[in-house]
Amino acid sequence: MKYYILDEKNSIEYVKQADLFPKEAELEVREIGDGNINMVFQIRQRDNGKSMIVKQAYPYVRCVGESWPLTLDRIRIEANAMELQDKYAPGLVPKIYHRNNEMALFIMEDLSHLGVMRPGMLKMRKYPKFAEHISTFMANTLYYTCDLYLDPADKKKLVGEFINSDMCKITEDLIFTDPYYDAERNNINPALRDYLEQVFWKKDYLRLEASKCKYKFLTEAQSLVHGDLHTGSIFADEQETKVFDTEFAYMGPAAFDPGLLIGNLLINYVSWNGKDEPPDKIEDYRQYLLETINDIYELFEKKFRTNWDQGAQDVIAGVAGYQDYYMRSLFVDMAGYAAMVMIRRMHGLAHNIDVDEIENLERRRGVQIKVLELAEELLMNRQKLAGIRDVTGFIHDNI
Amino acid sequence: MKYYILDEKNSIEYVKQADLFPKEAELEVREIGDGNINMVFQIRQRDNGKSMIVKQAYPYVRCVGESWPLTLDRIRIEANAMELQDKYAPGLVPKIYHRNNEMALFIMEDLSHLGVMRPGMLKMRKYPKFAEHISTFMANTLYYTCDLYLDPADKKKLVGEFINSDMCKITEDLIFTDPYYDAERNNINPALRDYLEQVFWKKDYLRLEASKCKYKFLTEAQSLVHGDLHTGSIFADEQETKVFDTEFAYMGPAAFDPGLLIGNLLINYVSWNGKDEPPDKIEDYRQYLLETINDIYELFEKKFRTNWDQGAQDVIAGVAGYQDYYMRSLFVDMAGYAAMVMIRRMHGLAHNIDVDEIENLERRRGVQIKVLELAEELLMNRQKLAGIRDVTGFIHDNI
Repeated sequence: MKYYILDEKNSIEYVKQADLFPKEAELEVREIGDGNINMVFQIRQRDNGKSMIVKQAYPYVRCVGESWPLTLDRIRIEANAMELQDKYAPGLVPKIYHRNNEMALFIMEDLSHLGVMRPGMLKMRKYPKFAEHISTFMANTLYYTCDLYLDPADKKKLVGEFINSDMCKITEDLIFTDPYYDAERNNINPALRDYLEQVFWKKDYLRLEASKCKYKFLTEAQSLVHGDLHTGSIFADEQETKVFDTEFAYMGPAAFDPGLLIGNLLINYVSWNGKDEPPDKIEDYRQYLLETINDIYELFEKKFRTNWDQGAQDVIAGVAGYQDYYMRSLFVDMAGYAAMVMIRRMHGLAHNIDVDEIENLERRRGVQIKVLELAEELLMNRQKLAGIRDVTGFIHDNI
Repeated sequence: MKYYILDEKNSIEYVKQADLFPKEAELEVREIGDGNINMVFQIRQRDNGKSMIVKQAYPYVRCVGESWPLTLDRIRIEANAMELQDKYAPGLVPKIYHRNNEMALFIMEDLSHLGVMRPGMLKMRKYPKFAEHISTFMANTLYYTCDLYLDPADKKKLVGEFINSDMCKITEDLIFTDPYYDAERNNINPALRDYLEQVFWKKDYLRLEASKCKYKFLTEAQSLVHGDLHTGSIFADEQETKVFDTEFAYMGPAAFDPGLLIGNLLINYVSWNGKDEPPDKIEDYRQYLLETINDIYELFEKKFRTNWDQGAQDVIAGVAGYQDYYMRSLFVDMAGYAAMVMIRRMHGLAHNIDVDEIENLERRRGVQIKVLELAEELLMNRQKLAGIRDVTGFIHDNI
């Protein structure tokens, strides 16, 4: 089948031809994507409410246009990654009903009964099962795709299968490079510019640490990472958690996923400095956030170690001291990636609404500087942090 | 063309059909491989002496048999790697005249006017241009295939192209695993066994450091490494140097090549303890070895830095302090890999004749223990070594 772009009309034809709905069913279609790089439709059967999501890749960044081409192959990678995630962390990613690599699309479970976490968190919503679920997701997907568990030949097959140059390049540029320079693509709060010019961009040591983190992102083929695991890539409610938008998946440093996630939670933590909620509500939510961060990382580490103890394949997995060394490196790198994402979300191309919904630019500036300073603290002291409670303790005492 | 195994007869037909020799030429053929895993023929035209080398892979380890299968694809990888090496380090690898991936063979320049370095070094032969040549080979092949120079998408293509699971597995097992256990495949001098059981295998910290080195070998996709760069993989005389046997090539840690090479030179250095050459000749040759090691590493580092200064593509390449950090990590890892190879050549499956030609097993034991102790020193102190002269200085003072 030759690739063509789906619209509201031919997407209905497509799902019927694919036998996903009865031929005579009356269907309604709605575009629900955030519009950045892909097209996402919800297709719903009127009489019984049965619905599915169609995700199709464009051969370029949709919000930019044909001047920024992106390989369609990313849909194959995303669907392959979701299948592996579903295998190792069942129930924590949307089910795929249909795939078509030529059309650069897949059709999956509709999870719109759940909300995306990021907007929920803007309303101080709590997710009591989230730490439990996401720690399982990370511990399993990151452990069962690494050399400790897999036969090294199978692991190397994954490296080849998940070569994801275009998407990795976005991360390489937007996370590890642009924010450390006055790059054209940066999206800078005008009120923040003087700080960047007079303070932030003068800190050569930040650029050096960013380069070290970038090197690992470029070279360390450790585990199948989600690659964009922030609160905007997660559906959740009180009971359920589903991770989506896996198109950045590749074989990279395991620490990247928990780092991105925790960095995003820390941004939300600081963002309340710029908002007018009652102090006791803010304090309560922040307490929840710190506990969640502690739980996420401690459960992640515990489950990763349990997986290791139960199912290691490589003989080096049993070497005295190696597990502690491995987990320690993972933690230190996690802190580095958390800092990287906190920085890029302040003045890089793509921001978090957590901070950008603060309309007063001076006030937003205050929050952004706080996030940048906190990120610097994390980045520069990551070797000295004893564990996640050092991170949350520092945040608690300094924000 | 369907794969078939060449022998002395049909190899002549093959080269004639491939138009590498005139149809009427009288050819003579000689099997010249070391017999471990491939078949290597020299084919020579009687009337004018024109000759070529045919290298064909077997679908298993030739010296073991069909119980140890090896992918034929390694010949494609080897020839691809040689072409890249020839591009970046012209004149330092054999020219390829003909390739045939289906037949798992390539035909190359005959370099038998040069000798393999290892047997030459057993006779204390000196190679005055070797350090200059091999430092160029390593600096260029390792720099021009890494993310500093290449577009990251091109670099990732190399990662996919050079996935070399079967050959890497040999290294993973025989270098990083077996020597640290009483593994069946080990080839142990009976006189050394008590030392291994009572001393070496009791040192858990060695196993831990070996695991760290193995982790990097498994995951660090930095540069296209030769993967087996020892003195038995190099032809040389006073004027020329040619690197061959590149079938272990893959995208791995750059430090692996200089580490293996220097580890092998250090084994030769220690081996004279077990031989009866006149002391002044030994001292002179050892002096030559230490100078060669200093030159190799210092020239390698200088040339790698020059390549970097002249041709870096990634913006992080210009970050203050990053080059020093990168070269420092490379040096530390090099020392680790040097230690790894010194250990594996003492009691792993494949030894160096440098030590194994010492016929008295007790005497050989003495040399082997010295090499193991020296390797331990290098491995455990690699973070503290200021540079290559710390390595050679230590050797000079302690052997």
